[in-house]
Amino acid sequence: MTETRFDVVGIGNAIVDVLAHAEEEFLVQNGLNKGTMTLIDPETADGLYKKMAAGVECSGGSAANTIAALASLGGQGAFIGKVKNDDLGEIFGHDIRAAGVAFDTPMATEGVGTARCLIFVTSDAQRTMQTYLGACVDLGPNDVDPELIASAKVTYLEGYLWDPAQAKQAFIKAADAAHNADREVSLSLSDPFCVDRHRDSFVDLVNDHVDILFANEEEIKALYQVDNFDDALQKVRGHCKVAALTRGEKGSIIISGDEVHIVDAEEVSRVVDTTGAGDAYAAGFLFGYTNGKGLAECARLGGIASGEVISHYGARPETPLDQVVKNRF
Amino acid sequence: MTETRFDVVGIGNAIVDVLAHAEEEFLVQNGLNKGTMTLIDPETADGLYKKMAAGVECSGGSAANTIAALASLGGQGAFIGKVKNDDLGEIFGHDIRAAGVAFDTPMATEGVGTARCLIFVTSDAQRTMQTYLGACVDLGPNDVDPELIASAKVTYLEGYLWDPAQAKQAFIKAADAAHNADREVSLSLSDPFCVDRHRDSFVDLVNDHVDILFANEEEIKALYQVDNFDDALQKVRGHCKVAALTRGEKGSIIISGDEVHIVDAEEVSRVVDTTGAGDAYAAGFLFGYTNGKGLAECARLGGIASGEVISHYGARPETPLDQVVKNRF
Repeated sequence: MTETRFDVVGIGNAIVDVLAHAEEEFLVQNGLNKGTMTLIDPETADGLYKKMAAGVECSGGSAANTIAALASLGGQGAFIGKVKNDDLGEIFGHDIRAAGVAFDTPMATEGVGTARCLIFVTSDAQRTMQTYLGACVDLGPNDVDPELIASAKVTYLEGYLWDPAQAKQAFIKAADAAHNADREVSLSLSDPFCVDRHRDSFVDLVNDHVDILFANEEEIKALYQVDNFDDALQKVRGHCKVAALTRGEKGSIIISGDEVHIVDAEEVSRVVDTTGAGDAYAAGFLFGYTNGKGLAECARLGGIASGEVISHYGARPETPLDQVVKNRF
Repeated sequence: MTETRFDVVGIGNAIVDVLAHAEEEFLVQNGLNKGTMTLIDPETADGLYKKMAAGVECSGGSAANTIAALASLGGQGAFIGKVKNDDLGEIFGHDIRAAGVAFDTPMATEGVGTARCLIFVTSDAQRTMQTYLGACVDLGPNDVDPELIASAKVTYLEGYLWDPAQAKQAFIKAADAAHNADREVSLSLSDPFCVDRHRDSFVDLVNDHVDILFANEEEIKALYQVDNFDDALQKVRGHCKVAALTRGEKGSIIISGDEVHIVDAEEVSRVVDTTGAGDAYAAGFLFGYTNGKGLAECARLGGIASGEVISHYGARPETPLDQVVKNRF
């Protein structure tokens, strides 16, 4: 087994977020499903953007946020994702590299523009996301370098990557490359609606390919089509090496064979915007995991990272997470 | 005299800001002149952006910020400025319209991209701005519609507009159109270095075209090449109808013929980022002025608007300014 260069390599949709405040009424009037991510076509994106308040743009994307947060914790991260060579693509590439992440996926030079996600943040700190996938649909198996995958302890995949057609193949290629090199594969289920869209694939994936699964309560219930969390928890046990199940302000539960840890959430003085909460949790957890920490400590690191990200607008850390962790331990 | 549709029409460089935190050391290492605006070419912009931390993008531009803040106060505003039809140009147009401002300047369809300003914010809340003017150089007299100018009580011009060559003609055409329609013309000197670049023009402009002048201490001293504020103050008196001179935490001084008002700054709990402080001051002042308020009240409105903008990251108001004003009066 060769030396590892990276703790985690993430594969996901490369997206620029456009964040603006919105009233509850706006969500209702525009038929937006609060707290979830919906895929929209370019025309819908244009129409919705016209009605959106003045916004702030910052780099996003679920797995990309995770890897940026991992780097902020002091971890070594790489990212694979597709942007176009337009203004937003440049911004995405700049920001993830500035965060200290290796990012070498070639930009698309033709076709549709870089993906954007319109995020409507309501006063209760919930975010409602409308994503136009743009250039993400061009990510394919050719963008996955097996050597890069083999050089990372964990390959992390976001469930959203199942949406653009070609990316599934990239996804499977990466998982195979990781296991061939005796590395581990981690998946985040991303969103209950994403699970509904791809349930059978996800069940197979969890059974056959995934070592570390991230899901929140709604997502794991959606995966196994059960009504209560305890049933879902019993189902997931045994299907993957580790399942980290997040429950918002109730903290998280880690299941690994017979081992179960129930870890409280970190205290947050004011929750401003929950965009990126799950992404940051995965970052903290995987940072601990790839650095040999016990599962309970991994969960606590997840909670600390997530606590920083929800205390301000935007999905990536404002305060370097290694400092935040130092202050909490 | 026809009915006015607008309180203020602003003409300025249409710019998207890229804000990121920077250490003092970074400024020194890269020879950046703290607290000022420097014009840079695209190569320098690229090189500097590569070294910049992960950022946040939001619409900026001095006069554009002023008009957006005026609209947030409840004023009727219009803006003239040039973007290209690229991602950043779309963002600029969206944000200023979403703020409630009329913006109909045709986008450039060829040539260089939309202007961007790299803003390095240090821990002392000072901002150091590096601007690549891009499509702003295409703004010309054809973009100034005399009917629009005639329909606004005040035409507001930023001094920075003197930098791109053609824009001067747009500037003069607008000032003439305003006076021909018995409207008033206002100018912000923008920056002491901007004054140094264009001193003779600015002196002529203030003498011949400007009714309401905005300047801070450094700018007004640079204009008249004097070392102390009092000398500058004596010089400006009589050259224009109203001069509003800002002095940071010392508040502002308004001079209008024999009338002088010394107005304290508003209390701000924490100064985070001074980007846009002067722009917001001009907005508050002009909102009061075009709505028949006395000069001291205009200055106070300026201070309130400016106080909101410096209390957070970014140059445009986060909290609607009409609410902020309501809470202060």
